[in-house]
Amino acid sequence: MTTYDEGPITLINVFEVEPEKLDAFIASWRERAELMSRQPGFRSLRLHRALSPDSRFQAVNVAQWESADALHTAQAQENWQQMALGAVEELGFTANPAIYRVAIEITAQ
Amino acid sequence: MTTYDEGPITLINVFEVEPEKLDAFIASWRERAELMSRQPGFRSLRLHRALSPDSRFQAVNVAQWESADALHTAQAQENWQQMALGAVEELGFTANPAIYRVAIEITAQ
Repeated sequence: MTTYDEGPITLINVFEVEPEKLDAFIASWRERAELMSRQPGFRSLRLHRALSPDSRFQAVNVAQWESADALHTAQAQENWQQMALGAVEELGFTANPAIYRVAIEITAQ
Repeated sequence: MTTYDEGPITLINVFEVEPEKLDAFIASWRERAELMSRQPGFRSLRLHRALSPDSRFQAVNVAQWESADALHTAQAQENWQQMALGAVEELGFTANPAIYRVAIEITAQ
């Protein structure tokens, strides 16, 4: 088990989606994202779409939350879990979510 | 083969690293990141470190470049390629780089 100290975190979720199902995946993901964005502790998210159909990970979500606890509370909602399970069943993608902090940041001068 | 239209892109590189080698990975990655950050077209990067050693992807780079061409030119440098190959040989990680654009963006009200 992992314990988290306080403070903002980044959720990164890396999706394997068949390229021909990517448009449908993004449309259904948007509904779940809008639900999550109304939960306490949500700050921002960006869903990234691969430019090449040959890329292993066709979609990557990078989201900021005020704490790991806030994220876990939002993910525990039954409503959201049912939407996510239904989308996996319909579209057959795999998700790889994990919690991160920024280790190195560089901005162009 | 994938052709890219003009405009800014996001490079996302998802790394599988053994958790006990993560500190060494981040130290060697920093050297390569500093080299890349001096190349034309570089905008910014963030290397994210997983909070749990159980996460599949222990490190994720999210970087902004002015164009896919600028990124490819920077990646073609022999100096950088040799550094990256040496790090893979020493630390045994796998990299999964791909080029993305933002499909959905939501910020808290």
